[in-house]
Amino acid sequence: MSRGRAVNACCVRWAVRGLASRRAWRIPKVAGAMAPLGEGSDDPVLPDLPRGPLHAARARASFPWKELALFWEGPDMLRFKKNIFSALENDPLFAHPPGSLSLEKYRELTFLRCKRVFEYDFLRVEDLLGSPLRVLALIQCLGMYDWSLATKFFLHTLTFGSAIYSSGSERHFKYLPKIFTMEIFGCFALTEVSHGSNTKAMRTTAHYDPTTEELIIHSPDFEAAKFWVGNLGKTATHAVVFAQLYTPGGQCHGLHPFVVQIRDPKTLLPMPGVMVGDIGRKLGQNGLDNGFAMFHKVRIPRQDLLNRSGDITPEGTYVTHVKDARQHFSESLGSLSSGRVAIAGMSVVNLKLAVSIALRFSATRRQFGPTDEEEVPVLEYPMQQWRLLPYLAAAYALDHFSKSLFLDLVELQQGLLGKDRSARQAELGREIHALASAGKPLASWTAQRGIQECREACGGHGYLAMNRLGDLRDDNDPNCTYEGDNSVLLQQTSNYLLGLLVRRDQGGARIESPLKTVDFLEAYPNLLGHRFEGSSPEDCLDSSVPLAAYEWLVCYLLRESYQKLNQEKQSGSNDFEARNNCQTSRLVKP
Amino acid sequence: MSRGRAVNACCVRWAVRGLASRRAWRIPKVAGAMAPLGEGSDDPVLPDLPRGPLHAARARASFPWKELALFWEGPDMLRFKKNIFSALENDPLFAHPPGSLSLEKYRELTFLRCKRVFEYDFLRVEDLLGSPLRVLALIQCLGMYDWSLATKFFLHTLTFGSAIYSSGSERHFKYLPKIFTMEIFGCFALTEVSHGSNTKAMRTTAHYDPTTEELIIHSPDFEAAKFWVGNLGKTATHAVVFAQLYTPGGQCHGLHPFVVQIRDPKTLLPMPGVMVGDIGRKLGQNGLDNGFAMFHKVRIPRQDLLNRSGDITPEGTYVTHVKDARQHFSESLGSLSSGRVAIAGMSVVNLKLAVSIALRFSATRRQFGPTDEEEVPVLEYPMQQWRLLPYLAAAYALDHFSKSLFLDLVELQQGLLGKDRSARQAELGREIHALASAGKPLASWTAQRGIQECREACGGHGYLAMNRLGDLRDDNDPNCTYEGDNSVLLQQTSNYLLGLLVRRDQGGARIESPLKTVDFLEAYPNLLGHRFEGSSPEDCLDSSVPLAAYEWLVCYLLRESYQKLNQEKQSGSNDFEARNNCQTSRLVKP
Repeated sequence: MSRGRAVNACCVRWAVRGLASRRAWRIPKVAGAMAPLGEGSDDPVLPDLPRGPLHAARARASFPWKELALFWEGPDMLRFKKNIFSALENDPLFAHPPGSLSLEKYRELTFLRCKRVFEYDFLRVEDLLGSPLRVLALIQCLGMYDWSLATKFFLHTLTFGSAIYSSGSERHFKYLPKIFTMEIFGCFALTEVSHGSNTKAMRTTAHYDPTTEELIIHSPDFEAAKFWVGNLGKTATHAVVFAQLYTPGGQCHGLHPFVVQIRDPKTLLPMPGVMVGDIGRKLGQNGLDNGFAMFHKVRIPRQDLLNRSGDITPEGTYVTHVKDARQHFSESLGSLSSGRVAIAGMSVVNLKLAVSIALRFSATRRQFGPTDEEEVPVLEYPMQQWRLLPYLAAAYALDHFSKSLFLDLVELQQGLLGKDRSARQAELGREIHALASAGKPLASWTAQRGIQECREACGGHGYLAMNRLGDLRDDNDPNCTYEGDNSVLLQQTSNYLLGLLVRRDQGGARIESPLKTVDFLEAYPNLLGHRFEGSSPEDCLDSSVPLAAYEWLVCYLLRESYQKLNQEKQSGSNDFEARNNCQTSRLVKP
Repeated sequence: MSRGRAVNACCVRWAVRGLASRRAWRIPKVAGAMAPLGEGSDDPVLPDLPRGPLHAARARASFPWKELALFWEGPDMLRFKKNIFSALENDPLFAHPPGSLSLEKYRELTFLRCKRVFEYDFLRVEDLLGSPLRVLALIQCLGMYDWSLATKFFLHTLTFGSAIYSSGSERHFKYLPKIFTMEIFGCFALTEVSHGSNTKAMRTTAHYDPTTEELIIHSPDFEAAKFWVGNLGKTATHAVVFAQLYTPGGQCHGLHPFVVQIRDPKTLLPMPGVMVGDIGRKLGQNGLDNGFAMFHKVRIPRQDLLNRSGDITPEGTYVTHVKDARQHFSESLGSLSSGRVAIAGMSVVNLKLAVSIALRFSATRRQFGPTDEEEVPVLEYPMQQWRLLPYLAAAYALDHFSKSLFLDLVELQQGLLGKDRSARQAELGREIHALASAGKPLASWTAQRGIQECREACGGHGYLAMNRLGDLRDDNDPNCTYEGDNSVLLQQTSNYLLGLLVRRDQGGARIESPLKTVDFLEAYPNLLGHRFEGSSPEDCLDSSVPLAAYEWLVCYLLRESYQKLNQEKQSGSNDFEARNNCQTSRLVKP
């Protein structure tokens, strides 16, 4: 069914164009990694594959797979991953139990496994900044094993931990060692029952009481209950809770993050005034305990306001270096960007797993043939190749894209921590935000469709739970929704791209960005005069040809959207209506 | 990602064209059904809806919903469905238990519910032919409740029961009353571990032994085990088993169906020589016990060969009215066509349920608005409408299509039972087979994508299991695979369409069919000269415009496929290669 949105389609095309551009294809540094490894090598990191039903297909490869693995990952990363996989493989706690687990048992087991991952100490705290790609690799290795575990670990260490680190100040650093020893267990409580995408409309309140120097956290009604919060259902002892901050006199200073104790770390019983529970079975990731919480006038010390962007004096005066509420809001939610980049990478892992399962099955499953006696592996059918190989290619392209974007994000975060307030830093922040807001939808939707295609391409056997394609689909699905619904996120990218045109049209600003992903738009609208001049299939094999096509398409969609937006405004629509009315068009999702 | 196949895309376009054509829109006979029912009416079949959060949206409807329901279903059908729903609603056995059930418990409960459905006797045996649409409605009502139950019931009564009725003869009718009292419980065992689509390659054998007048059913190895058979895992006492029939001297007469007892009906213990079990958890429909079975020289009476198309004399001579193995094969598998039509209808039910859930949620969920104070129901956003309303329209179109095709199938089956061997009957069989082979993919894929879009359009809350969108997706998924993988089925339709061209080109045969769905192809290739002449959006609102566009598109895809096929053959490919190489192209799935 043909559906879509010009603006959103435009964002996705732009992200795809980024994939095809040379910038994205920076070759990772793997000096010395290209030394050929013979098939007979007994390298423990890349041992020869056992002979089995796949041998015949593998023997026909036109390239040495070990060289590709080394080129793609580098020897250090391969060793790092091997170390994680070996530990999990040899630890009975990580054995997949026969049959299926009850919800309670699965959540309990996931918590125990999460604790064990800390004990393995795969990644020292000091590595977090030193080897940033290892952070991603650890999450992805855990996710290859089970996304419930990876998400549980990730939400505690990275989401909860870095919210405290990056939104708080020195007075909050006392929490950090407790996070890494799991003395406390954390979660990130932003979403409420009635508000997800519209974060500004969250209704949990934090009133300051100067007589006791305490903040009173309160949920006015059930619709304002925190909801969907990962780790909150059974296990979190602490939460970073977002609430509207009120100072004495009743002035609201907007959404701020607070550290709120949820449960007693010894007994896991809820703290007084906190009503907390599990939201029940989900479509997937059922080892993760998503939960809800309502606060009945829960008092916390003034110091537990995470005060990087705003603070309260003991007397109750609000102080901030931030100029206005809009900047305030965007600073306190800045940590959300990293979630989107991580999700792009997580989606790629799901796509890789599904494609591997489907290709291996297809290389051994035989069905029909030129004669009744001779059957052909289904992978030999052009139809099967047509169904699966584009997703194999997408897995490579998106894997590189997500790592590259992650490294850009690390650069941005280092600037933020170093209090870099330069124009370039601000522009880099906007560019990465726009890239992540289109890259997450691109990766998660590609994975969603790819897994479904893999499931169907494996026929009936693909429907058997043990083959994992169902779990992959179910566990990948929230990637399309959390940290921003894909369709809503794409609007953030479209606002960025349209904003570039507006700035140039109104102020003559040159269109350029720190990562140069938008520089080609400087040729807009002239670029629209370019015409496709290929005359044979061979002409299209040069990557510059699809790249030029994508550039043209981004410009075309941008022009259509920009004109539609301007028409809407001229015909009297306000900004809200105008944006809504130009979100749909004849163009389809990627 | 743009993928597809010219031939297959062609089949789907043809099926879509069928939707748009007037033929498909025969108005059901609902004389007297249009009498207006006021909102205040207390009709027990269509009671007024309770006032609730949806009232505001419903009050804005531009048509009376009761009139639409009456027009669409007719009063008798509405009453029939209401009767089923009320029975299930008031019976504690059908209460949805809180929490989730273990696999064993869910399968046991589904069996008990299946037995209860027989006790309710919603549909008398004599209604099976008298009110054919009620058969479909019963299955669909049960499926609205739970597809595991519907499938379990359906496999026993219709698949097993009608295989015996239509493939057997009077000597087998003794089984029929036992089916309707559930004294025996049946399944249909065709698929094997290593062969699904390629039915001809099934390897279970049936050797005739004239000394005892018995047939010996045998599985040569595990790859020949019957597999995926619904009801076989825990509960079936009898199976229709497909096996290669051998007469003394070693001659193979191809695949034939046999009634084989699997378990003792009193104890459910396996019969001697039968190794039978459950294949475990699936992606969905986990209340249904899919199973495997291997036969170790299991002896059955000669009479348990279902002998409509071929029989064995006591001495071991094979007798048949069928001319060759190909005709034999197609007669013994004829009952598969009805499965495809039923699946199209089942897919529509899933789409209806998902769209209803998503639209109701969207009418009450508010997010963002023109001001910070005022939030808008998300259904008011053009984006949300763009995502959901095409699927609402598809649900209506496909609902009508599947019912209409079902009635055509009933006509065909009545002819078969009446031993109609006319040319029209044969042509009707081919046409319905082609329609069902494209209609099932169209309906099941539309449902698959529609449910996914509904899930995503409900945001995070759509990921909560209690909202059923996950179960719908999981339960709908096998519709894309069983009774023929969608991609493979489409090739059967493409063979039919290409065959029409070949017959005309080679023998000058006119292109026409009993249901007239292909008659427009008589204008091929001239129809390709037609050009779109609309100049405004209004021009496209007349349904003849998209119909003409679909006709053009079918012709275009058919020409491309036909030319490619001929090129392949001219360049020396055999039939097998030629067909494979023209299955992929630049065109996308529907």
